[in-house]
Amino acid sequence: MSLLVVGSVAYDGLETPHGKVDRILGGAATYIALAASHFTQPRIVAVVGDDFAPEDEALLVRRGVDLTGLERVPGKCFFWQGVYAADMNSRTTLRTDLNVFAGFDPKVPDTYRDSAFVLLGNIQPALQASVRAQVASPRFVGGDTMNFWINDFREELLKTIAEWDLLMINDSESVELSGETNLRKAAARIHEMGPRWVVIKRGEYGAVLFEKGTGHFAAPGYLLDQVKDPTGAGDCFAGGFFGYLAEAQARSGDAPLSGESLRRAVIYGSVLGSFCCEEFGPRRFETLTRQEIDARYEEFVAFTRFA
Amino acid sequence: MSLLVVGSVAYDGLETPHGKVDRILGGAATYIALAASHFTQPRIVAVVGDDFAPEDEALLVRRGVDLTGLERVPGKCFFWQGVYAADMNSRTTLRTDLNVFAGFDPKVPDTYRDSAFVLLGNIQPALQASVRAQVASPRFVGGDTMNFWINDFREELLKTIAEWDLLMINDSESVELSGETNLRKAAARIHEMGPRWVVIKRGEYGAVLFEKGTGHFAAPGYLLDQVKDPTGAGDCFAGGFFGYLAEAQARSGDAPLSGESLRRAVIYGSVLGSFCCEEFGPRRFETLTRQEIDARYEEFVAFTRFA
Repeated sequence: MSLLVVGSVAYDGLETPHGKVDRILGGAATYIALAASHFTQPRIVAVVGDDFAPEDEALLVRRGVDLTGLERVPGKCFFWQGVYAADMNSRTTLRTDLNVFAGFDPKVPDTYRDSAFVLLGNIQPALQASVRAQVASPRFVGGDTMNFWINDFREELLKTIAEWDLLMINDSESVELSGETNLRKAAARIHEMGPRWVVIKRGEYGAVLFEKGTGHFAAPGYLLDQVKDPTGAGDCFAGGFFGYLAEAQARSGDAPLSGESLRRAVIYGSVLGSFCCEEFGPRRFETLTRQEIDARYEEFVAFTRFA
Repeated sequence: MSLLVVGSVAYDGLETPHGKVDRILGGAATYIALAASHFTQPRIVAVVGDDFAPEDEALLVRRGVDLTGLERVPGKCFFWQGVYAADMNSRTTLRTDLNVFAGFDPKVPDTYRDSAFVLLGNIQPALQASVRAQVASPRFVGGDTMNFWINDFREELLKTIAEWDLLMINDSESVELSGETNLRKAAARIHEMGPRWVVIKRGEYGAVLFEKGTGHFAAPGYLLDQVKDPTGAGDCFAGGFFGYLAEAQARSGDAPLSGESLRRAVIYGSVLGSFCCEEFGPRRFETLTRQEIDARYEEFVAFTRFA
């Protein structure tokens, strides 16, 4: 089924212990769409400047991403530059130029209004709410956020996520949002804010999915031989997660989403996040195949089985 | 089957964000034996002073621990005092009094010499080797170590673990021992040092079991509502792991240990480690039952299932 994605399409300057690139395609919507494109044809709502390169657009087109909602305005694309610590578990921002993103007012094209799944990437909560409101009657709405919105736009954020089916967040953000350091307690507080489902991402250690009043599902992380660049891994997790759900729902028709589907979505999310780390920026998506994705899913089955 | 355990029987002074106790039973052999006692009758090799309290001995006896190898000498028990950080992922040692432990020369009683499983708790590598040498023909030998032995007794440690079937170690120690920050690469280096099996413990995030030339098994951690005191959790993991193996081997007779058994041992280890954190020191073992242990094992089955 159809998946609408909103977020940034940007350029990044990246430095990790394994190398340095001055300028490479980036942005949450980019990574989400590339990951989701292996399951469905994601529809992007984003804004780019006149420096958006034809070869980068070509990658998205080749992956079947619908660019009807990609607004093009005079100026430059959002640019972010950062450097990762030796263990790559933390990073320092060196530069953030909002550029055309500063005036982003997302407009959902008519052809997107029937979208069944809506994934609201990490942007200002009021804009996430605006995109949600422009979709007629989505089956499943979820999104991401970050410490900046949690701390400085708290009321706006709480009002926005109250309408969501699922919130996806990393562990430190779950503490900031809920005021609880214990993972179970943090998830319980976030359920009270609205979302029936909460996914807490724990970086290399995996992810935990909580369903309100039911229980949880815990997945360990995939052990890569080498992490070249973790940029975009969280967004690829989200893209794999929502992409898989949209595909599964297309198969099951009108049946409600099952907890089993959401568990498998966590694994597909983990698979896509792990592939993302194998190359700088989104380069791994130039060659990644569905066959490789399914093979890694089977690896997860094998390395978690014990009963 | 029979399980021999060597390590410390000690007293600890503990402070965590949830409370403070000035003096409570502790030590690696204590925690290992209490955890393993739910599966087998562990045989302890350790030393205590004349301050070893009758009520603490009574707990071990009540749990069926064989104390034939518990040497009693004049002086005081090993004493350790520490305080945990707010998130309990790190701790500061305030005091270490070796006392009678300084002259510990482990002697394996004749009645222990036929032990099938040998678990060498965290003590000086030469003493671990001495215990191993005093057991006639064990089926499975494994042990633990720590940064002090890795850095200051490296050659002695390498000679000792070369004889082991399994090394159990935490993630930061695996980096120090192997020189590799990547978990897969660290395990591969440790396989080269001898052990066919390597378990890398990741605290609250779970544990990973590697089998040389075969693959790995990853288990997420159990999500507790509250961690009161993590002291002894790693030792309880080891005790649950080896206790379960000894029990499983007793059922399967002469069949070689299977990878499946070792995977289930990781889960039982995780279960025992999680119970340990629920109360200060070893207090949880005053009431813990096999029924509670098996129920938590089934929780692991439920919260990790997706295929």
